[in-house]
Amino acid sequence: MPEHTTASRLRLSGLCFLLQILTIILFAVFVRYSPEGSPSLCSQQLNCSWKNQDSGFQHPRFRDVHLQALLGFGLLVAFLSRYGLGSTAISILIVAFAIQWAVLIQGFLYFFLNGKIYVGAQSMVSADFCTAAILISTGAVLGRGNPVQMLLLTLLGVTLFTLNEYILLSLMGVSDSGGSLTVHTFGAYFGLMVSRILHQPHTDKRKEQQDTGHQPDVFAVVGTIYLWIFWPSFTSATTVRHNTEPWAVLNTYFSLAASTLATFVLSPVLYEESILRMVQIQDATLASVAMMGMAGEMLVTPFGALIAGFLAGLIPPLGFRFLTPVLRSRLKTQDTCGVHNVHGLPGILGALLGTLLTALATADAYGGRLELVFPLVAQGSRTATDQALCQLCALPITLLLATLGGFLTALSPGSPNSDSSLALSRGSPAAKRPAEITSC
Amino acid sequence: MPEHTTASRLRLSGLCFLLQILTIILFAVFVRYSPEGSPSLCSQQLNCSWKNQDSGFQHPRFRDVHLQALLGFGLLVAFLSRYGLGSTAISILIVAFAIQWAVLIQGFLYFFLNGKIYVGAQSMVSADFCTAAILISTGAVLGRGNPVQMLLLTLLGVTLFTLNEYILLSLMGVSDSGGSLTVHTFGAYFGLMVSRILHQPHTDKRKEQQDTGHQPDVFAVVGTIYLWIFWPSFTSATTVRHNTEPWAVLNTYFSLAASTLATFVLSPVLYEESILRMVQIQDATLASVAMMGMAGEMLVTPFGALIAGFLAGLIPPLGFRFLTPVLRSRLKTQDTCGVHNVHGLPGILGALLGTLLTALATADAYGGRLELVFPLVAQGSRTATDQALCQLCALPITLLLATLGGFLTALSPGSPNSDSSLALSRGSPAAKRPAEITSC
Amino acid sequence: MPEHTTASRLRLSGLCFLLQILTIILFAVFVRYSPEGSPSLCSQQLNCSWKNQDSGFQHPRFRDVHLQALLGFGLLVAFLSRYGLGSTAISILIVAFAIQWAVLIQGFLYFFLNGKIYVGAQSMVSADFCTAAILISTGAVLGRGNPVQMLLLTLLGVTLFTLNEYILLSLMGVSDSGGSLTVHTFGAYFGLMVSRILHQPHTDKRKEQQDTGHQPDVFAVVGTIYLWIFWPSFTSATTVRHNTEPWAVLNTYFSLAASTLATFVLSPVLYEESILRMVQIQDATLASVAMMGMAGEMLVTPFGALIAGFLAGLIPPLGFRFLTPVLRSRLKTQDTCGVHNVHGLPGILGALLGTLLTALATADAYGGRLELVFPLVAQGSRTATDQALCQLCALPITLLLATLGGFLTALSPGSPNSDSSLALSRGSPAAKRPAEITSC
Repeated sequence: MPEHTTASRLRLSGLCFLLQILTIILFAVFVRYSPEGSPSLCSQQLNCSWKNQDSGFQHPRFRDVHLQALLGFGLLVAFLSRYGLGSTAISILIVAFAIQWAVLIQGFLYFFLNGKIYVGAQSMVSADFCTAAILISTGAVLGRGNPVQMLLLTLLGVTLFTLNEYILLSLMGVSDSGGSLTVHTFGAYFGLMVSRILHQPHTDKRKEQQDTGHQPDVFAVVGTIYLWIFWPSFTSATTVRHNTEPWAVLNTYFSLAASTLATFVLSPVLYEESILRMVQIQDATLASVAMMGMAGEMLVTPFGALIAGFLAGLIPPLGFRFLTPVLRSRLKTQDTCGVHNVHGLPGILGALLGTLLTALATADAYGGRLELVFPLVAQGSRTATDQALCQLCALPITLLLATLGGFLTALSPGSPNSDSSLALSRGSPAAKRPAEITSC
Repeated sequence: MPEHTTASRLRLSGLCFLLQILTIILFAVFVRYSPEGSPSLCSQQLNCSWKNQDSGFQHPRFRDVHLQALLGFGLLVAFLSRYGLGSTAISILIVAFAIQWAVLIQGFLYFFLNGKIYVGAQSMVSADFCTAAILISTGAVLGRGNPVQMLLLTLLGVTLFTLNEYILLSLMGVSDSGGSLTVHTFGAYFGLMVSRILHQPHTDKRKEQQDTGHQPDVFAVVGTIYLWIFWPSFTSATTVRHNTEPWAVLNTYFSLAASTLATFVLSPVLYEESILRMVQIQDATLASVAMMGMAGEMLVTPFGALIAGFLAGLIPPLGFRFLTPVLRSRLKTQDTCGVHNVHGLPGILGALLGTLLTALATADAYGGRLELVFPLVAQGSRTATDQALCQLCALPITLLLATLGGFLTALSPGSPNSDSSLALSRGSPAAKRPAEITSC
Repeated sequence: MPEHTTASRLRLSGLCFLLQILTIILFAVFVRYSPEGSPSLCSQQLNCSWKNQDSGFQHPRFRDVHLQALLGFGLLVAFLSRYGLGSTAISILIVAFAIQWAVLIQGFLYFFLNGKIYVGAQSMVSADFCTAAILISTGAVLGRGNPVQMLLLTLLGVTLFTLNEYILLSLMGVSDSGGSLTVHTFGAYFGLMVSRILHQPHTDKRKEQQDTGHQPDVFAVVGTIYLWIFWPSFTSATTVRHNTEPWAVLNTYFSLAASTLATFVLSPVLYEESILRMVQIQDATLASVAMMGMAGEMLVTPFGALIAGFLAGLIPPLGFRFLTPVLRSRLKTQDTCGVHNVHGLPGILGALLGTLLTALATADAYGGRLELVFPLVAQGSRTATDQALCQLCALPITLLLATLGGFLTALSPGSPNSDSSLALSRGSPAAKRPAEITSC
């Protein structure tokens, strides 16, 4: 057994080495910094219409570049409160690799020109959104895959995320600045499908106990505060302009406040405990940012944000109470950190709300903001109804890509269900050594 | 007893529901986002002279909007180090409700026009200052009121805070950009008066032990670092301009540094312990930001900030040693988190220092900054002495409103001293079930 | 013994009082805020050529002033993960005193004019870099000197840091915006030399155990996230301009990502444990920011940053495994927090890398950035080769000043090896009462 552990340690070491060398070579061949004075490089390409919309406000992007590492780390702290410190090292490995890989993959799609990828602050922010989606996927699988599998999940997840984002934002012209669909929904269902395939009947029972083990609430406190402080800025990363009021930021704050009250309304009714745990407030917080991802910049009245936030805050308590047991027993899908309740469902509802708001969008209500939120509608090349249809179609496409991608990822070499040389042998499946797996 | 607990849980749930629905309805009827291109909306009103002074620098405000949630959370972490994790959930509920309510109440006073309240980034920053004051009040009462009482305290506290701020800033033209009076002094004495009325002889003895229980210092470390990093920006929120040196920020940093040394000077003399606890350094930090609230932008020399900070740092050790026991035994006022020592007294001293500096203010020393700090003096409609008198009068007004308001709040329906249906029955007063109370 | 403890407590109290009074008097006599409208005050002096380069971009500096307290606190949290909470109070005392003292000492060199020191946001940022270096020195000595010694170390360390920085940046025109040499290398070797002189044979054995004691990983998690989020901005503090891509920020991010993977590659090979501890990832993070201090703004391709980061990530595991035991046994130098592995060696390698990159610098590759990174080369007063020679010479000068300064500091009054009245008597050397020493 110890020999096997040594082999498994060295395999991770070797895989990290190979991936890093591969990335360095690809960077050396393809990646260069954007030359100065060419912020609008992207506009020379046909397929980056969503980037064009950015080209006018370089400064907010640049200003925020020092915040870009925050997005993923907020999620990371949130997961610590559900799963404990053991998951940190592997999560940071995933962040470190996903950022490099996302710069490469997204670079080929968006910033490729004359045989080179020109990266800049924009690339890092885009890569960070991608990393956030991968971390959400990880949240569904934590403690059930070994580090090697997690790296493969990252490798394929980044690629599929970029494909989905490209189809939605560039080809279909969907507005989803905060990533209700691209980040939250994609991340959740991709991870859930991987989790479903990795399911092993006799190991999940023991896990079940571990899941419900109460982690110290200190991480939930830190996670909640972190999300309140920094997330509203991310939801609105692409809509902040110099002379407009930051509606997306304000909408997100209002919805955070309302979702917190919703938890206080519903939790005492559903649970017998007299004590409201901090992790439940954190769930409400995450759910409302997932809900506001698409709708945040579309809501034109504050009370709309309050209602949406209140509804979002109702989802996690209901989900954990009624849906998670069904998922686990009927659908054989373990969801370690409950990403279905705090990212998946709120993301879908956010997309539906966004579709509704798009259909109702009028130039009167939006004024000059219409050009920011729905550039194609403002230019007259689409009606609001067409745009709403596009937004609606984006939902099944995302779900399809996420589940199909998750299915393929879980079956790929490296998974315990396959016979690849990279995989652990069937005789000692990953789930049997939780200490090693979850700690590294 | 369990039945009663269930009833109490459901009453909180119901109250949250009612308050959220009420807020949503009021938002739906009254609150709209500011239309674009009208940053100076406020100037159309007569009663917002203090807001006019802001209208020129929209950008710093906008830039800082993602930081606005920080203010209250800094206090929240500071209280965790005094009272432990049990107080977090209820504190976050208070933050969530106070922000919504403050937007409404302040909106009626400052942003009401044509039957609508027009909110924007400014409203959120103002609401956050209000939330900070309410959290300070909460610090005096933590563990002694039930959640229902805390919500009523929030409801009335926000209203009284707004009234006091309106009288001071708009009617009297007082300069108090960092809130020495409006935030720290008001919050502390409002909370202390509520605490005094809630006093119940036979329950306080047990509490006493809990107060002095040593919470793990990790929260004090986090709280101190947090305050050092973020608070200086808040003290100066209204005085940052493009081309002026950020004196208020620098003054606050210098005073933070000096107050830390003051604690190292005084604590070993007053206490026998050889170990300086982190929470004492945190107290010095809080005291010096309360002190700098009004004077921060008025000090024109760095050594003045060092002296003021040093004096502020002496207050909490002296207060905890000599004043808190007197408050508790003679005045029957329990002060859970010591807000009198770290907010109340330093706030009053800060106001007196601010008055002195105002009286000494000359156009020579301030230069172009005079218009920012004392717009009425710069416009010639007041002499520096008149302004100083106004600043001085603001202190008794704040104390009067805070104590009177606290008195009325504690006697209002919901308190254990009243017979309201919302209140807990006298037979099982709030203070008898500390676990339930402090945890939710 | 208790009497002695009381004396020691009061001595610290008295020293703090004296130092604070001294600082206040010096501030009162010399320090004033910069008058308005004179951002280019510095340019009137001959000896601040490196500051001139700043005068054009006041705004980024001003914008970042609220972040300036972050730099030191990041290191502080990192040390907590190595040495525990006991070191916090004394570390914050050091931060509080070092900032005041650095403003004074640096003021005399850089901002002295007409008999006054004119301070502003720039002074605070410079003072914060100095504080970071002193904290690194502290990291080598933690738990081995008493608070009085630590204050003397701060007093002399700040002075020597300023001298070294002045020689390197102003006299020699070296480019070291992120402080590979001035902060990391100087801080590490200054602290290590103090540690060497304080060495006491029979006390170090017990310490050894304490060093390897596993602190809870929660601080390492917080420290790592903190460094990822905020440090890249510091590395590039002086190179951010409005219209240039923030290469230094991006380079630092890429190197952080690669160094994390390097730890996952090397640690399993060197250590038997199957569990990768968070503190190892934190070490890699610190090493890569030390490496990028000088080279961050000079690397013109992303893959260069990946390679440099990967190499930096290899240093701490190798250093802790092979070098620290040698340092301890042969060179009798205890290194409490391993600053040699995470700051010293990576700083030296960063300086060598910077030298290489300087020698290769061409106007073609840098474009308009050449003026920012190598103003003297851009102005034609130096060739790239001359500049590279200067960068190279800066390394031995820094090492010499750091070790010589550390030697003198450790022998100065207050150290247990001296007979000063301030020092503890030989009969009860500092290292014998670790509880008192490390806690206060």
